[in-house]
Amino acid sequence: MKRTRFDDWPCGIARTADLVGDWWTPLVLRQAFFGVRRFDDFATSLGIPRASLTARLDRLVEEGVFERVPYAESPARYEYHLTPKGEAFLDVLLAMWRWGEDWLNPADNPIPVQLVDSESGEMVRPKVVDETTGRPIEPARLGLAPVIPGRRDQ
Amino acid sequence: MKRTRFDDWPCGIARTADLVGDWWTPLVLRQAFFGVRRFDDFATSLGIPRASLTARLDRLVEEGVFERVPYAESPARYEYHLTPKGEAFLDVLLAMWRWGEDWLNPADNPIPVQLVDSESGEMVRPKVVDETTGRPIEPARLGLAPVIPGRRDQ
Repeated sequence: MKRTRFDDWPCGIARTADLVGDWWTPLVLRQAFFGVRRFDDFATSLGIPRASLTARLDRLVEEGVFERVPYAESPARYEYHLTPKGEAFLDVLLAMWRWGEDWLNPADNPIPVQLVDSESGEMVRPKVVDETTGRPIEPARLGLAPVIPGRRDQ
Repeated sequence: MKRTRFDDWPCGIARTADLVGDWWTPLVLRQAFFGVRRFDDFATSLGIPRASLTARLDRLVEEGVFERVPYAESPARYEYHLTPKGEAFLDVLLAMWRWGEDWLNPADNPIPVQLVDSESGEMVRPKVVDETTGRPIEPARLGLAPVIPGRRDQ
């Protein structure tokens, strides 16, 4: 059965879910942020079946999240480098990390690692704010308004 | 074929992906933030097959993201209310929204709505920062460190 596609829905959440809404894709992207670039290293470090990995990487290349960069000629071999679009996805992973740390972290099976600033050694706690004001976003004040073509606010 | 489970992986991203890593779940949660609480309203507003919706809601109740609250007795009917754990998930949705808006928003099929502050009318642009310092998180400085049991930094 073909799944419902969300990539043309009028919502940034739906479009993002269409791309990353399977269990492996966020983990493939996590590995990329940890410096993994080669097919075998993704496969080994995640234990992902090779066919699943191929499907995810192909989709992420097609969507412009990864760029395929050759590193050997015969046979041809490629690395997967994050594009600016891929690098920007870190915010989504960080929000997932924080929520998992806060809410999926039982005492009998705790997450054994935390995010730190590698220079200061201080713990890093990702939090979403409004970029314009720097303030936390209050759900009760959040609304939707139509975008006027050519006059998108920035 | 049973999928690989990530809910006991030592990583907040993996645990979160295990819970929300399908295409429908983030959209069910989005509807909840827009005030949807009843099965039929989720089903109608999303066009999600009823069996899929039942499976998602059951999992989200089991995980403590939704609480089932009765609103009629015969037959028994329930509303799905976000718990504090569910409300905290807004950050993940906001990060997805922002990324989708920035990167999955082609000119020939733009996202027609934007997030606004309903009091000021100003556009809201979700951005992840370090809660402690208020500063953007620099990928190059991000590291992992072991959590010392009982001495988790806050």
